[in-house]
Amino acid sequence: MAARHRTPTMWDVARAAGVSQATVSIVLKGDPGSRVSATTVERINDAVQALGYRPNATAKALRERVAELVGFIGDEVASAPFAGEIVEGAQERAWQDGQLLLVVNTGGRRDLEQAAVEQMLSHQVRRFIYASMYNRPVTLPPSLESEEVVILNAVDPSGTTWSVSPDEVEGGRAATRRLIDAGHRRIAMIDIQTLESRLPAAVGRYEGYVAALEDAGLGIDPELVRFGGGSPEHGFEHAGALMDQAAPPTAIFCANDRTAWGAYQALTERGLRIPDDVSIVGFDNQETVAPFLRPALTTMNLPFRDMGWAAADLLLTGGAARKGKARSMRLRCELVERDSVATPRERA
Amino acid sequence: MAARHRTPTMWDVARAAGVSQATVSIVLKGDPGSRVSATTVERINDAVQALGYRPNATAKALRERVAELVGFIGDEVASAPFAGEIVEGAQERAWQDGQLLLVVNTGGRRDLEQAAVEQMLSHQVRRFIYASMYNRPVTLPPSLESEEVVILNAVDPSGTTWSVSPDEVEGGRAATRRLIDAGHRRIAMIDIQTLESRLPAAVGRYEGYVAALEDAGLGIDPELVRFGGGSPEHGFEHAGALMDQAAPPTAIFCANDRTAWGAYQALTERGLRIPDDVSIVGFDNQETVAPFLRPALTTMNLPFRDMGWAAADLLLTGGAARKGKARSMRLRCELVERDSVATPRERA
Repeated sequence: MAARHRTPTMWDVARAAGVSQATVSIVLKGDPGSRVSATTVERINDAVQALGYRPNATAKALRERVAELVGFIGDEVASAPFAGEIVEGAQERAWQDGQLLLVVNTGGRRDLEQAAVEQMLSHQVRRFIYASMYNRPVTLPPSLESEEVVILNAVDPSGTTWSVSPDEVEGGRAATRRLIDAGHRRIAMIDIQTLESRLPAAVGRYEGYVAALEDAGLGIDPELVRFGGGSPEHGFEHAGALMDQAAPPTAIFCANDRTAWGAYQALTERGLRIPDDVSIVGFDNQETVAPFLRPALTTMNLPFRDMGWAAADLLLTGGAARKGKARSMRLRCELVERDSVATPRERA
Repeated sequence: MAARHRTPTMWDVARAAGVSQATVSIVLKGDPGSRVSATTVERINDAVQALGYRPNATAKALRERVAELVGFIGDEVASAPFAGEIVEGAQERAWQDGQLLLVVNTGGRRDLEQAAVEQMLSHQVRRFIYASMYNRPVTLPPSLESEEVVILNAVDPSGTTWSVSPDEVEGGRAATRRLIDAGHRRIAMIDIQTLESRLPAAVGRYEGYVAALEDAGLGIDPELVRFGGGSPEHGFEHAGALMDQAAPPTAIFCANDRTAWGAYQALTERGLRIPDDVSIVGFDNQETVAPFLRPALTTMNLPFRDMGWAAADLLLTGGAARKGKARSMRLRCELVERDSVATPRERA
């Protein structure tokens, strides 16, 4: 389809100002050493205003071979129910440098990913954020290998590309320590995947749980550790089984908020009150879940906005361009205190 | 920052193939009337392959003044917990034409919106989707008035721009009819806003509720209609009040799933079972909520993916370019049957 109206060009500005196109070009480039008179500059600026001329960023991108665009390639992250903040954080940082974020969801399909990368490259995009919905090991598509890339919410097993991800281990430790500090000793954990999954969120949060118990001189009771699948159904099933055993826990660390939601349902069904009978800590601070459970859920915040911001910042300050010096940047998860933790009751 | 490596140009292809740049240009344009020999074409194609040359889309956009980009400007929609599907649907349709979606969230700020539009225009973007997180009346920024725009998940009160939004009235009618068909006569509604808000979702769903009751020859009992604020707390409070009155309803139509979630909490707290004691229908089919309530929530699906797809389709097939013929396209909300509706019990 052809354009329906003509955008004013530099030639139109020149004609309106009664000067050459070269003069307009010199003035708009803002070259301080140019010999154009002040009245001519003023005439050109007036013509720019009157015509609504806007300097052509596409032309600029073409000239400089670097567009004012940051490519954001996400498997599902841009449409994940809880990760929109990643995009917002990255965009906020890009905006500071007058850059736009070009977002594409690939749905995890390699062919779409490849086509998106190709098209972005042909639009002179030279900086990329490669984001994952879940914190997991990822492999870059070959066409991105020589570009400036930051991997987001994931890790690069080869260690050659910068990555920004949450500090899962420290988060798991802080969540568990919150329960220890409240006086709990029998603390269960319902993880979101098995350790064999090698999912950093599952493995790291578990390692943090173990470390916090060891820090406090408490042993690991295998009866109290369950591996679910991360959904409310799994939380419901495993929390129910935990409470039905001979020596139930007084507190449960659920490795995500959805698992915690299922645990709430299992406890409510058994007439157990939170936090009076059982304390719960979640993970993710999922904004559509955690504040609305009854009681509101104490949980660990995933620093999505900060992660997006940090990834864009690494690209725009040139940090990500230093090949051979790539490293993982792990951002801290903060405890969000709500109403699901209390001191354990004395056993009758 | 300067580019770190040089992308092969048409000149490089020409040098490698031993022909002029003009010949390469003619061959790559695929002009059927050109007199270039088959062996030369082959030599050029080999050089393109060997060098990894890719035709420069930025140059093409500059030449044609229409880029292979569709601008997607959202207030918060691109990061809303339940509306990522809008972006996916639009992107899916854009992909079919080899176009990328350039997504920007403005957070509802007019200054950011203006800057984003300016920057997109300077990148030769000429087609725009202007999306709202909530179905509401919107006014386009002036710089978009002469561009091809489709308003998404919102309506244009001036009637000059195409819009795609859900059919709220028909959705409210279908939700209420589901409860009538199950045999309920005392059906309450908890809306997500007052009618004075003029929010199409609040007003339309209420109109649908009224229409369904009238269709069935049932009157509107003002005691059974409540106006909340759309969050679980509002559902909790209003459902509690509804059940505590002298003649409580046997069914509640909650105008969103979050309100329904709060209603579940209020009913559970009163020892009432869903659906045996009270039936509930929600609205939105919010994927992080509806399937995980116990019992799973029967609700109306918002056709987000279809809406995004339809908006991009209107732009790409030229439908949105027919100024003076703008109209509202309203897409149907389908009932998603789960487990929260049953036949009312006989009163003892």
